[in-house]
Amino acid sequence: MQTPWEYRYAHRTQKMGSSVIRELLKLTEQPDIISFAGGLPAPEVFPVQKFKEACNYVLENEWAQALQYGATEGFTPLREMIARHTGRYSVKVTPENIMITSGSQQALDFIGRLFLNRGDYIVVESPTYLGALQAWNAYGAQYIAVPSDEHGMIVDELEKVLRIGPKFIYVLPNFQNPSGVTMSLERRKKLVEIADRYGVPIVEDDPYGQLRYDGDHLPSVVALDAEYRGDNGTYTGNVIYLSTFSKLLAPGLRLAWVIAPNEVIRRLVMSKQAADLHTSTFTQVVAYEVAKGGFLDEHVKLIRATYKERRDMMLETMDELFPSEVRYTRPEGGMFLWGILPENMDAAELFKKAIDKKVAFVPGAAFHPTGGGKNTLRLNFSYSRPEIIREGITRLGLLLREEVAKNAQSKHLYD
Amino acid sequence: MQTPWEYRYAHRTQKMGSSVIRELLKLTEQPDIISFAGGLPAPEVFPVQKFKEACNYVLENEWAQALQYGATEGFTPLREMIARHTGRYSVKVTPENIMITSGSQQALDFIGRLFLNRGDYIVVESPTYLGALQAWNAYGAQYIAVPSDEHGMIVDELEKVLRIGPKFIYVLPNFQNPSGVTMSLERRKKLVEIADRYGVPIVEDDPYGQLRYDGDHLPSVVALDAEYRGDNGTYTGNVIYLSTFSKLLAPGLRLAWVIAPNEVIRRLVMSKQAADLHTSTFTQVVAYEVAKGGFLDEHVKLIRATYKERRDMMLETMDELFPSEVRYTRPEGGMFLWGILPENMDAAELFKKAIDKKVAFVPGAAFHPTGGGKNTLRLNFSYSRPEIIREGITRLGLLLREEVAKNAQSKHLYD
Repeated sequence: MQTPWEYRYAHRTQKMGSSVIRELLKLTEQPDIISFAGGLPAPEVFPVQKFKEACNYVLENEWAQALQYGATEGFTPLREMIARHTGRYSVKVTPENIMITSGSQQALDFIGRLFLNRGDYIVVESPTYLGALQAWNAYGAQYIAVPSDEHGMIVDELEKVLRIGPKFIYVLPNFQNPSGVTMSLERRKKLVEIADRYGVPIVEDDPYGQLRYDGDHLPSVVALDAEYRGDNGTYTGNVIYLSTFSKLLAPGLRLAWVIAPNEVIRRLVMSKQAADLHTSTFTQVVAYEVAKGGFLDEHVKLIRATYKERRDMMLETMDELFPSEVRYTRPEGGMFLWGILPENMDAAELFKKAIDKKVAFVPGAAFHPTGGGKNTLRLNFSYSRPEIIREGITRLGLLLREEVAKNAQSKHLYD
Repeated sequence: MQTPWEYRYAHRTQKMGSSVIRELLKLTEQPDIISFAGGLPAPEVFPVQKFKEACNYVLENEWAQALQYGATEGFTPLREMIARHTGRYSVKVTPENIMITSGSQQALDFIGRLFLNRGDYIVVESPTYLGALQAWNAYGAQYIAVPSDEHGMIVDELEKVLRIGPKFIYVLPNFQNPSGVTMSLERRKKLVEIADRYGVPIVEDDPYGQLRYDGDHLPSVVALDAEYRGDNGTYTGNVIYLSTFSKLLAPGLRLAWVIAPNEVIRRLVMSKQAADLHTSTFTQVVAYEVAKGGFLDEHVKLIRATYKERRDMMLETMDELFPSEVRYTRPEGGMFLWGILPENMDAAELFKKAIDKKVAFVPGAAFHPTGGGKNTLRLNFSYSRPEIIREGITRLGLLLREEVAKNAQSKHLYD
């Protein structure tokens, strides 16, 4: 029997969906489990001392502003700093092109609120980021999943699907969550051109852009778009770009930003005013104090060194112990890598057995909004220390050897 | 000519509405203007020293948790503290009845998201809180405005309008924003009964409940609802209750909470997960450190004493200088009082002349979602120091004497 409350919002039930992943992550929180399931930054790289100094400075000198209500678009010095930083990567923007959000998740939500009507299509990579799907499911989105390979979204497939009239194209070009794959320069350029030809906006989600451990930095899609249309002044193009302090400073701040043409920012500001007035002034002023004067440029080197070591340890152990039937990506940056089991194996089944062996990952099916991916899985390498990674991947490798062998046998039985 | 971006979200334009008030508040930000227009707490009551100690403690001892991702429903010790506090006011709740939000504005947004379809009706007081209208306008709400008098919403009018089938009833029973009026105990009880009879939920917004300067505390609507239905265990009733740390600690934290039956909280948590994952862990842990151990109970005495003095100064000066044709409320608490000009006077016209005299308020029309209120205005008494209040109200009083005299004359001319 439904309670009166349940009848009242019954029409919302399907829209929001039940969070399978949420339930699954609870299983991984037992203290003796080595979890590669979450997406947490390493606490070892939080600049705690710097935060302490910043809090003391702000509460000595800027408390009246930092504790008071603030502007919906965000703290101006922080937006100016982001504008300067963005300028270094060749997109000319002013603070009027920037809005601060409470994490990138909030920007994804506002983009849904602004552009989506029930049943509208969004073009996504397959696999794609789960949080984006959760944000847009709430607005009744439907998805067109374009397959990806080791160079990112296969943009030659785009032309076909843009004829269907999607509201926007969502891409994570750098060290994608979940796959760890980076979109090639050639494909980025082609994406910009095709999107422009069909007049379909691009949402570029770039939480990990600064976290590159090998190879050369590639220009962002928004930078290529500005170049493509020859924007001389501030940016007026076709891309809404998202990035965040969650991976550079600390996710507990909930601080991220959107870069877009000013006319889009103005609309997003109206959404934000209705949604939560503004992001915490206190965390914004503190983050600005921490980040300013070039600290972030120095700090990111520590993060890169820390995560590179962890990624290398994970890959080395996998190379050593994983059966050759299991393939996996070799990300040049970010926080995740992606495993592909033999076609007929089920990562959700493997997950249960892995929990028994006290090691966890995320089965990949949930990252595929239009189905498939049952034989895939995501592994996080940023959170655990190297020796823990070695131990956890060893457990998983031994399990995989058993399971792949069994699988080959059972396949044989029914051939 | 519309830009491509404008065509894309054209269907959203009307929904969001342009923020007249936002533009108006910009006018009041000139440094030589005495503004009673905003709704800011006094910076003099921010517990800055306590914040500094809390930040240092947290960054010494709890940094790994405070800077990391957290649970969507909020920091458990904070929710436990709110549950104990709520228990003191006779509603039995557990942390499972509580979700932390980024300001009450976010709770209003989530309530809209959960219950509203385009065109749905909401019953509101007239006048009512502007931020709630902005939140629900985004979901295409329509309003049924029930008139209020000096005892709050005239609940005898409710029975009629509940037959129309509104999704919920929105009330601010204590020192209402904007009117400063408190709903009488008798009306609160009747509201609970009628809402139950028609099966229509109540959203009780209570940002100022602790800020009472005269008279006795009245039980909240949620407490009366629990009593009415004889809830012995945790709360399972008909009210969603909102309150906030914005007025008790500092609005720059963006910390508020919702109390509701657990089944409603579970749904709100799903909304929040899609909307911004969770509220800043750092501000939550710091706020808990500041508030715990009875500090809030002590601190609220300082706030009460400060605001009482300011309210008294405002009322005294108004009694002295305002022409008798202008009526106004005498709030027992909160941050606002409400002025009513002679019927044929326009507060928006008065606003322009007041800006010339370097004093500002908010014209009341915007607080009336179904029209009317052109001759009303809102004055904030929490932000400015007493001597500034005296000076500003003196300017306004002298202007009003002139304007009311002119108005009487022009009325005579056309009689």
